[in-house]
Amino acid sequence: MKVGVIGASGYTGEELLKLLACHPQVEVSLATSRRLAGRPVNEELPSLRGHLSGLVFQNMDVAQLAQETCDIFFLALTHGAATPYARALVDAGKKVIDLSADFRLSCAARYQEYYGEAHPDVDLLMKGAYVLPELSSKDWRRAPLVACPGCYPTSILIPLIPLLREGVIRAEDIRIASLSGVSGAGRQAKEMLLFCERAESSKAYGLPKHRHLSEIEEQLTKAAGVDVVVQFAPHLVPMRRGLISTITACAANGKDIEALYKVWQHYYAKAPFVSLFKSGTFPDSQHVVGRNRIDLAAVHDPRTDHFVITTALDNLVKGAAGQAVQIMNLWSGFDEDTGL
Amino acid sequence: MKVGVIGASGYTGEELLKLLACHPQVEVSLATSRRLAGRPVNEELPSLRGHLSGLVFQNMDVAQLAQETCDIFFLALTHGAATPYARALVDAGKKVIDLSADFRLSCAARYQEYYGEAHPDVDLLMKGAYVLPELSSKDWRRAPLVACPGCYPTSILIPLIPLLREGVIRAEDIRIASLSGVSGAGRQAKEMLLFCERAESSKAYGLPKHRHLSEIEEQLTKAAGVDVVVQFAPHLVPMRRGLISTITACAANGKDIEALYKVWQHYYAKAPFVSLFKSGTFPDSQHVVGRNRIDLAAVHDPRTDHFVITTALDNLVKGAAGQAVQIMNLWSGFDEDTGL
Amino acid sequence: MKVGVIGASGYTGEELLKLLACHPQVEVSLATSRRLAGRPVNEELPSLRGHLSGLVFQNMDVAQLAQETCDIFFLALTHGAATPYARALVDAGKKVIDLSADFRLSCAARYQEYYGEAHPDVDLLMKGAYVLPELSSKDWRRAPLVACPGCYPTSILIPLIPLLREGVIRAEDIRIASLSGVSGAGRQAKEMLLFCERAESSKAYGLPKHRHLSEIEEQLTKAAGVDVVVQFAPHLVPMRRGLISTITACAANGKDIEALYKVWQHYYAKAPFVSLFKSGTFPDSQHVVGRNRIDLAAVHDPRTDHFVITTALDNLVKGAAGQAVQIMNLWSGFDEDTGL
Amino acid sequence: MKVGVIGASGYTGEELLKLLACHPQVEVSLATSRRLAGRPVNEELPSLRGHLSGLVFQNMDVAQLAQETCDIFFLALTHGAATPYARALVDAGKKVIDLSADFRLSCAARYQEYYGEAHPDVDLLMKGAYVLPELSSKDWRRAPLVACPGCYPTSILIPLIPLLREGVIRAEDIRIASLSGVSGAGRQAKEMLLFCERAESSKAYGLPKHRHLSEIEEQLTKAAGVDVVVQFAPHLVPMRRGLISTITACAANGKDIEALYKVWQHYYAKAPFVSLFKSGTFPDSQHVVGRNRIDLAAVHDPRTDHFVITTALDNLVKGAAGQAVQIMNLWSGFDEDTGL
Repeated sequence: MKVGVIGASGYTGEELLKLLACHPQVEVSLATSRRLAGRPVNEELPSLRGHLSGLVFQNMDVAQLAQETCDIFFLALTHGAATPYARALVDAGKKVIDLSADFRLSCAARYQEYYGEAHPDVDLLMKGAYVLPELSSKDWRRAPLVACPGCYPTSILIPLIPLLREGVIRAEDIRIASLSGVSGAGRQAKEMLLFCERAESSKAYGLPKHRHLSEIEEQLTKAAGVDVVVQFAPHLVPMRRGLISTITACAANGKDIEALYKVWQHYYAKAPFVSLFKSGTFPDSQHVVGRNRIDLAAVHDPRTDHFVITTALDNLVKGAAGQAVQIMNLWSGFDEDTGL
Repeated sequence: MKVGVIGASGYTGEELLKLLACHPQVEVSLATSRRLAGRPVNEELPSLRGHLSGLVFQNMDVAQLAQETCDIFFLALTHGAATPYARALVDAGKKVIDLSADFRLSCAARYQEYYGEAHPDVDLLMKGAYVLPELSSKDWRRAPLVACPGCYPTSILIPLIPLLREGVIRAEDIRIASLSGVSGAGRQAKEMLLFCERAESSKAYGLPKHRHLSEIEEQLTKAAGVDVVVQFAPHLVPMRRGLISTITACAANGKDIEALYKVWQHYYAKAPFVSLFKSGTFPDSQHVVGRNRIDLAAVHDPRTDHFVITTALDNLVKGAAGQAVQIMNLWSGFDEDTGL
Repeated sequence: MKVGVIGASGYTGEELLKLLACHPQVEVSLATSRRLAGRPVNEELPSLRGHLSGLVFQNMDVAQLAQETCDIFFLALTHGAATPYARALVDAGKKVIDLSADFRLSCAARYQEYYGEAHPDVDLLMKGAYVLPELSSKDWRRAPLVACPGCYPTSILIPLIPLLREGVIRAEDIRIASLSGVSGAGRQAKEMLLFCERAESSKAYGLPKHRHLSEIEEQLTKAAGVDVVVQFAPHLVPMRRGLISTITACAANGKDIEALYKVWQHYYAKAPFVSLFKSGTFPDSQHVVGRNRIDLAAVHDPRTDHFVITTALDNLVKGAAGQAVQIMNLWSGFDEDTGL
Repeated sequence: MKVGVIGASGYTGEELLKLLACHPQVEVSLATSRRLAGRPVNEELPSLRGHLSGLVFQNMDVAQLAQETCDIFFLALTHGAATPYARALVDAGKKVIDLSADFRLSCAARYQEYYGEAHPDVDLLMKGAYVLPELSSKDWRRAPLVACPGCYPTSILIPLIPLLREGVIRAEDIRIASLSGVSGAGRQAKEMLLFCERAESSKAYGLPKHRHLSEIEEQLTKAAGVDVVVQFAPHLVPMRRGLISTITACAANGKDIEALYKVWQHYYAKAPFVSLFKSGTFPDSQHVVGRNRIDLAAVHDPRTDHFVITTALDNLVKGAAGQAVQIMNLWSGFDEDTGL
């Protein structure tokens, strides 16, 4: 199967190429980058040395792309930039897996609220499917386009959706602190992302209304069946990759830690990429870096009757490229963990 | 004035020596370390090169120490180890500033609950004063012993105590996520503190009942006049120094962000070591490293009616050694910011 | 094929387990660790979650080990500790790949000079083969034991041996500066390896006669056919993994950069794990981390008539575990790059 | 005394402001930055919070600057940009301390060779003095302009000049490996300086002819009295600040390590900012960060008859801003260590 990666020179694109290069069922036949057009992929991205020989970055317009013979296209572009590509490819009958934020919401008004402008293609927004492979019902496979969840949302939705669906936690007053490695901000030449600015530095940012909040609340609301409004505090910490979330949620009436783990077990015992840690242990971002995995644990605090849930994933893998490949595997009928 | 530092080879002790070495009003006449006894201080602690010439680490028993002619003793020992030194020095009429956790609580039962054993000297526990220089009433100067607040508590109490006292936030359901640099764990040769374990790694720990919670809740309860129970989630992040806290608290009825800042202004406009940042900016741990300063900011989230408060300090300075020197300055009648 | 890893809880052992767990031709049937005996491997080493289910760390004496049914044993022990295991396993007819320094020299006197004591098993020292897979002649496969080169030596011998053999550089006055990530020092709970000591810190160490010098000079001497004495300056830099070497060597009479690259091409054009970079580019340790690869480049300085050679590898992979698996592949008749 | 800092928003400029803000004899009356013009200094540079109240970044043209009443101007600009400012200020009778590379050479041809274009003001180039305060003869005080040495050159010239002058080492075949923290590259929004590119990454660069080589060789040649050509290999390592150099030099006939230290003692026993470490110990960059200090040590290798010299300094302090303040102190008749 031939695949193409649009916007392949960013951190997510590079990670996608690494995974796809080792995937036994696919051939990367296209990688685009305006900045690196004409340059060999494995020279510009030295981590790919020895892989993808002969592949050269292309700079194609939308019309040219739609002529390409790839079966699946991954869009690894910044938000706002993906829509015209997605439209043209979908119209050409291609499968599209979009890693940007362009198709993650099912509500155009919410998009406008969080992204500051009207969605440029509401029709396609409505047709796209937001897919958390572990949780989404299987009919997403019939959608023309899949939106990959963001890194923060994945770290939050995987633990919370089952607990809300099954009534283990209350829907009110969920509060989340997330810590992200710097690659979450992308490969942008900005002063605030320089080594000297970020090393030995931790800070909150994007408070109180980070854009990822829109998809977090939309999905939690669906799971709970009532409106969910959460407090979400993202932080930047001095590591390249990895993301952890610490979530406090009120226990539903009488629910204890066994009830919580029982639900997680029920949902995830067979999920190859969700790993449950014993209560009292705490997932460490370092242990998931480079792997398509999310680690979960929780404790109950009897003093407050809160659960404190801790999760870890690699923002570029289970939070982006790995999850996209996982989706591709399911969509293409491969084993879910092929190449992961 | 002569001062002594007991337990001077740890990170806090080293930072104390650095500050005291440059302090114009004091002479460090004693530094003890069992491990480094007999070794010149500024060879074993190369950051002190060029300072404290001639000072050699001592290994003294409690009785010998009480004979020393220092006016003030700083105890930079691990919790549990400070009490016998404190007792002997107080009995000998010395002023003692204790940076350990031994005298931070005013309730022996709470000590036992959090530290797992009976307090070894309840009489002295009762006599000691817990001093946040910006907030404590001035009669602490008559106590024989001062307990320095911990790094996490300082980052939390400085912003919250005024807000609770003045009724800007509600006392219920305060939740805190704190991120600490690795030096907060001390200079201990433990596997989990190795470079390779902590670099590129973030994780929560000590949930749900970290020991610092005991002094946090005791002080917040005093400020609020009602029992305060908080959710506290400490995290270890890959930086040497620095600590940030992100605190969500429910706004008291009708209180807005102006009300919050007005209270902070009232309390801290003249505080040399508290820096108020505009709402919408976020303190960065890097900017306070090496300085005796705490940076504060807050936003109001109208969706939840919560305040989200963010703070930053250097765990070894305003969170330990700097605060101890600040206390010494006040206790000795020096200007509060001498040598800081 | 069944394999065992002796000393599997260190950084090298852990890396070996990771590689072997994904290797399609082998089953890890044994992992030993005195410290973690009885504990599940993939709980104690969370990076292995999802792999090696059921494997539990063993604590076996030498006699028990020799009864195990593994075909190949990897010894990932500190220097000095490997010899008795190696002897017993060799006597039991097992293949042994030793990652320690115990069998890297072919001269007992040199061992004593560098390691400060007589070699405990000179007979086995003489029988063991020092194997750089890219360079060693094929008869090593008949040896009972293979010694894996160290990380520094690999980064130095791969570029230099061909140049000395082919007379591109002079054998006199080779000088080397190497920079190693902290994992090179192993998972030891030592103060100087703490995060706070090593972060934001660079320093030389082990000058002028680091132990790895013994194998570097022995191998270079063999390649040159004359005694080679080099200046070797290792440094510790604040990264977890990765190692680079910068080598200056005098050009042999009239040899230019084309001559140098021509020799490298001749030796390495088909070597799957040696990557030649264009003159004027410089290998970056980050790009080889996690891969069994060494990157090489060189420039000629006409002002001094020196070549300056720069190399990068992952000290735990091509500098240890990956190279060991590469050796195992060749020894077992698998493709050289299976599982790498 | 009033001072001005031109180009105050870079890392060097910020460090200068920090030092000058605490200097008891000077007032910073001017700080310029095109990018930040109109913004309060201590808001844009949060590490300066609490200092320099009221100081606002200016954007002045050269003519305006010359009207300013400062006694000394520091130029913290990138190379090439300083010359017109220097010319105008010198013509206006101001003292100028230039931290750029514009006036570090005494030979216009060498400037052209290394910087790729003719020097724009050879007259001023000839009048400027290159000042290493510990080594330059005192008549530099009569020059209108002082060029501050670069960070790499300071780390190399301080140890080597005395040894060449006194004939302890030979002038031939000196080779240097230097490791620099990332701030050495300045506060530039370049992709290769991003956190994710530099963390966990070490690499050589600028081989074989880094620009700093020009001033290194010019000064060593003066010290030796014969042409000195060195091999210089700079490296970028993942730390914010700090720089170490490891230098191998051939011992002059019969010179041993005592002879070397004796010369250093003679030159530096009274130098407040040069610290000699015992042979067999190795300066660590972490210990000098934030201090105006250079640490030196050396070993002799009897196998090669080389000295291996290791040095450490903070590239932004003794390698830039601190050294500039040290020069200002001497030029203004203050104690050399005032404010340092």
